[in-house]
Amino acid sequence: MNDSTEDLTAPAPGSARPGGRTARTRAAVRDAVLTGLSEHGYPALTVEYVAEHSGVHKTTLYRRWGSVEGLLADALALAGEDAWTPPDTGSLAGDLGALAHEVVDSFGDPARAAAPTAFVGAAFQSARAAEALHAFYAERFHRCEAVVVRAVARGKAPVGTDPGAVVRAVSAPLFLRLFVTREPIDGALADQAVRATCAAVGAGAFVTG
Amino acid sequence: MNDSTEDLTAPAPGSARPGGRTARTRAAVRDAVLTGLSEHGYPALTVEYVAEHSGVHKTTLYRRWGSVEGLLADALALAGEDAWTPPDTGSLAGDLGALAHEVVDSFGDPARAAAPTAFVGAAFQSARAAEALHAFYAERFHRCEAVVVRAVARGKAPVGTDPGAVVRAVSAPLFLRLFVTREPIDGALADQAVRATCAAVGAGAFVTG
Repeated sequence: MNDSTEDLTAPAPGSARPGGRTARTRAAVRDAVLTGLSEHGYPALTVEYVAEHSGVHKTTLYRRWGSVEGLLADALALAGEDAWTPPDTGSLAGDLGALAHEVVDSFGDPARAAAPTAFVGAAFQSARAAEALHAFYAERFHRCEAVVVRAVARGKAPVGTDPGAVVRAVSAPLFLRLFVTREPIDGALADQAVRATCAAVGAGAFVTG
Repeated sequence: MNDSTEDLTAPAPGSARPGGRTARTRAAVRDAVLTGLSEHGYPALTVEYVAEHSGVHKTTLYRRWGSVEGLLADALALAGEDAWTPPDTGSLAGDLGALAHEVVDSFGDPARAAAPTAFVGAAFQSARAAEALHAFYAERFHRCEAVVVRAVARGKAPVGTDPGAVVRAVSAPLFLRLFVTREPIDGALADQAVRATCAAVGAGAFVTG
């Protein structure tokens, strides 16, 4: 895991000519990283593997991304650039339910779960991967907060409810079982998390200040 | 990570002469595994390292534990054999609060957190480590269920409340931040988790059947 110092002075990956050759290269590299993570996991991911599967020369990868950690961090950053927005079902319970079921659907499907699971696992081995994972989830949960902000605006949640705490609360029991207790998750568990979170919101358990 | 087939026919580690030489050997091996995990993490843990730091010959380690995965699984099994029991403060909120604060205290101290964090990380790389982690937490949360069973018996929680779901719910927001979003945890967050979980229990959100 040697961080190249070149990486600090090079332009950020993909910063030149969006949509052009640089963007295509970055996407090809990202795809190779995701494939490698899905099929072999982080410990087996190498710059050589990414070069072979992306068609981008190893020298270019080292120059632009610095290391395997840099490749991983950029793949996560690119994953965070999607246009995903949280559901708007008209109720807090409906919105939180959609979020919770999306976790079950994503991680219940081994093919879809492999790369995100590998990202979570990589953070145990690399401080840079941990930072990238933190940034990814901070931004993702920030988008989710809209469902709580709407509920407060509609008078369906107490003023002062911490939106970030609520959206984390509804997914936490699922992530606990996925990555700590290693237990199966299903729709019933998602529904239980929604019931629990909505009851807690209603009782003002997430009001801060 | 080669699993020796010898391991399947050998007696379970430590099964002979409890408290005697076998138990001492097993504890020395466990200590070396924990030290290795704390200082270098699972990817760097080798049978050679454990031999060197436990004073137990490599041949013995391979014969009795089969592999690094076997060493890790047995260290977790031994960790699960402690006499820990959940707090009994007289109230559900007090008991859940003690559990949640224990998570904060354990994982907020880098020295104490290193080995358990490495166990959670190892499960991403080894199916056998994942099974051992699952068994450890299943047993640990099973012990915690007593606090909910007592609350139901005292009429402080609805009949039919799922004890396992409740004790997982109160720690889930902490584990999410530790291992997924990589955010800091503190006592205030533990208190929030307790308020939310108690409100959900009171509302019957964890009643099953």
